[in-house]
Amino acid sequence: MSEFTNVTVTREANVYFDGNVTSRKVTFADGSYKTLGIMMPGEFTFGTEKAELMEILAGKLSYRLKGDAEWIDVTAGESFNVPANSSFDIQILELVDYCCTYLD
Amino acid sequence: MSEFTNVTVTREANVYFDGNVTSRKVTFADGSYKTLGIMMPGEFTFGTEKAELMEILAGKLSYRLKGDAEWIDVTAGESFNVPANSSFDIQILELVDYCCTYLD
Repeated sequence: MSEFTNVTVTREANVYFDGNVTSRKVTFADGSYKTLGIMMPGEFTFGTEKAELMEILAGKLSYRLKGDAEWIDVTAGESFNVPANSSFDIQILELVDYCCTYLD
Repeated sequence: MSEFTNVTVTREANVYFDGNVTSRKVTFADGSYKTLGIMMPGEFTFGTEKAELMEILAGKLSYRLKGDAEWIDVTAGESFNVPANSSFDIQILELVDYCCTYLD
């Protein structure tokens, strides 16, 4: 287990895809923020504005960046990056607990 | 939307009932803590150690305290209390976003 200290948490969840993806926003003293979220098994497509670092805390997924043909497997303890102003497809194979960092 | 400021968030989620109930722990400067969670539609039974205040931020549920015959409906903006060392049944009618405060 690890912790984020001296942060602000937005109480209300972000809810996507009928609740199959949910997350909560954690804001740091420097104004940067991350979301901590859960993805239930299924297939989803997300758009990005900022670039994102997706850290997988638990579970198993496969993702495909916009324009790529290949699906890439990711499991607990691994991470992947998504470019800004893009999108990615994701298949959740086992319930995923994740931390998403939004990069400037 | 509301926020909890100057808190510590445990990064990893608590996962119950195959991920149909998930929560994250928020610890305050005085050592007290709450969990922010999501419950998907379904019926669940929870045990308590500490007494709990369950605030419903979004969604709709019905609950029944241990030993009670009656189900009580609760909707967004409402809350209910559960005694320590007890249990309650809960039917999630629409995806619930909740804040649980553990009381001493």
